[in-house]
Amino acid sequence: MAQQHLDPTDPMAGAVTGDALAGYLRAQATEFLRALRLHRETGAGAAAGGSAESVDAARALRRSARRISASLHTFRPLVDTDWSEAIRPELAWVSGTLAMEHAYAARLERLLLALHRLSGATVLPAQSGVADIADVTDGVPAPQKGAPSPAGPPTHPAATPDRGNLTVGAAKAGALLDRQLTLARTRAHSTALQALGSSRFHAVADNIAVLASEVPLTPAAAVADLRPLAAAAEERLTDAVTALPLVTAGHPYNAEALIHGLSPDPAPHPQDAPWHQVRLLLRLHRYAREVLHGDSEPVDVRLLGTGQSLNRHRDASEAAAAAAQAARTPRIAPATAYALGVLHADQRHEVEAARFAFQQCWQRQTVGTP
Amino acid sequence: MAQQHLDPTDPMAGAVTGDALAGYLRAQATEFLRALRLHRETGAGAAAGGSAESVDAARALRRSARRISASLHTFRPLVDTDWSEAIRPELAWVSGTLAMEHAYAARLERLLLALHRLSGATVLPAQSGVADIADVTDGVPAPQKGAPSPAGPPTHPAATPDRGNLTVGAAKAGALLDRQLTLARTRAHSTALQALGSSRFHAVADNIAVLASEVPLTPAAAVADLRPLAAAAEERLTDAVTALPLVTAGHPYNAEALIHGLSPDPAPHPQDAPWHQVRLLLRLHRYAREVLHGDSEPVDVRLLGTGQSLNRHRDASEAAAAAAQAARTPRIAPATAYALGVLHADQRHEVEAARFAFQQCWQRQTVGTP
Repeated sequence: MAQQHLDPTDPMAGAVTGDALAGYLRAQATEFLRALRLHRETGAGAAAGGSAESVDAARALRRSARRISASLHTFRPLVDTDWSEAIRPELAWVSGTLAMEHAYAARLERLLLALHRLSGATVLPAQSGVADIADVTDGVPAPQKGAPSPAGPPTHPAATPDRGNLTVGAAKAGALLDRQLTLARTRAHSTALQALGSSRFHAVADNIAVLASEVPLTPAAAVADLRPLAAAAEERLTDAVTALPLVTAGHPYNAEALIHGLSPDPAPHPQDAPWHQVRLLLRLHRYAREVLHGDSEPVDVRLLGTGQSLNRHRDASEAAAAAAQAARTPRIAPATAYALGVLHADQRHEVEAARFAFQQCWQRQTVGTP
Repeated sequence: MAQQHLDPTDPMAGAVTGDALAGYLRAQATEFLRALRLHRETGAGAAAGGSAESVDAARALRRSARRISASLHTFRPLVDTDWSEAIRPELAWVSGTLAMEHAYAARLERLLLALHRLSGATVLPAQSGVADIADVTDGVPAPQKGAPSPAGPPTHPAATPDRGNLTVGAAKAGALLDRQLTLARTRAHSTALQALGSSRFHAVADNIAVLASEVPLTPAAAVADLRPLAAAAEERLTDAVTALPLVTAGHPYNAEALIHGLSPDPAPHPQDAPWHQVRLLLRLHRYAREVLHGDSEPVDVRLLGTGQSLNRHRDASEAAAAAAQAARTPRIAPATAYALGVLHADQRHEVEAARFAFQQCWQRQTVGTP
């Protein structure tokens, strides 16, 4: 989509104008409508989990909703303000609502896998209805525990003996988490179904249908250069990364992630927030690149790596919080609480490992870029 | 003590003979007797903890007992077999018995410090009677949590707010550990006092008094070269290190140390045993170097670093086991059990961090040595 000029004195040389933005938004809107049709055809009304097709469709819906919303944000001077400011919160509501069911399922799977690892068992837990535990939020497979280093996965020196089943505390903790997160997931499924049938959602879909044919750009947008706005998005990312405690993160086993592990605050660790923020800014930067370069650019493995680390950071952070939350269930056995404590700390170390992986990946990126 | 020859064709050039061994054993025996006298003079009969002088004296006793025993082991072909085989188990009994009190005190201090760190508190716990939490087993200060990397300690980006006191679960866990480990320490103190007053100990002291004046070497020892025996000790160390899972250990956050974190086995993690063994072999190697080179050699910072890592590994391993053990106390509150679970996992990650630090230190050693 890039309009290439060859005159180096031309300030618009290599410029990408509003046309590219319009094309991108139309394509994402079309994708949204296609996914919505597919979702309706593939039994969205079924029980939690649904068919693989309806899961894929929901994912595609979220995927395009995120991209539309992000592009409207990054390039907001070029889009009709009233329209843009009305639709963005609605798109956030759609993708947020649709994400919850998958998030609970993935969280449960992550915690059960961790419990099995911690029990020294080599068998995986029985599939709990999640067809795919990869974090495909952004079409990116989740990194596996034990493979944080970009230098390659560690070799596991000796297979641990298969103890056949979990210990009592771990089994009870697993059952408790299963109960709580499955309930949350079922509720999220109902909420998502209700949302998709609501008049609020129909209004969003109507808006997106309009977007698929006619993008409400400002009059100046057609000849405006997108690059400064994309560069500003990248700068916001870079600034936020600079503010992260990367020196600490680059020291393995710095023990920072667990520092509030026993704090009385039930809220997620405040130290995680800047990392979650960078995750969102990284996504905005990535989508802005998509607008500028379309499919002409190969996948940027550095963006992919840092994005994976931050997804893992977010997942581990939320899993750790779920374990801590479960431990507050009244009348649980001490053995259950103990297992949940070990599990919480394990996931907080995953948080720390993800920060380390991000730091490694980001440093390489900075060094490798001219 | 080294006898330097300058003729390179002389097979005994640079040889260190049995005389050096005799001198070393005499010096260590004298040190043992001096420490014993000091211990008796400084109120060894006092309550647990005792005076700083009596703690120092007990440490010096253990220190020389370990060195005598190790030298008898490494250079056993050069020492009267019957005598050596009779005294070595007795020396192990002395140093083992004397070590327990300090070990329980240090373990409690480590666990309480960890609990405070995990609670996000910046204040240290009230001194629990341990004059010095440094692991001075070998005259080496313990590495601090959070400074595993040889590149320097991480900067802690922001002071965590001082929450004033521990949360309920952490406070109860701390009180439980305090009770259990203080009891164990008091018992260890009584056991040590009984041991020092026993006829068994007096027999050991008599034997060491003989050693201080006359070392029972074999007739051939005076002209025997010590170096092959010292080299064999080093080779046993190198072989044992080679068998360690160093590739895994070199990958930060490999999650190996917690893999049996919830296993039903109350025994210490079997995966720790090879590392404990290397710790002992490293010590034998270090003492053999002392015999060969005496005080003429500067401190080997590489041996120091690897030794520190392995001390930290052992301490964290035992602290993790103590937390798991405390969690098996009947009728504890779930919040207490949860805090102990977090604490156990935290110490198991310390185990993993120590392995990483060892790997880094050892690799540098291997690369740096011609």
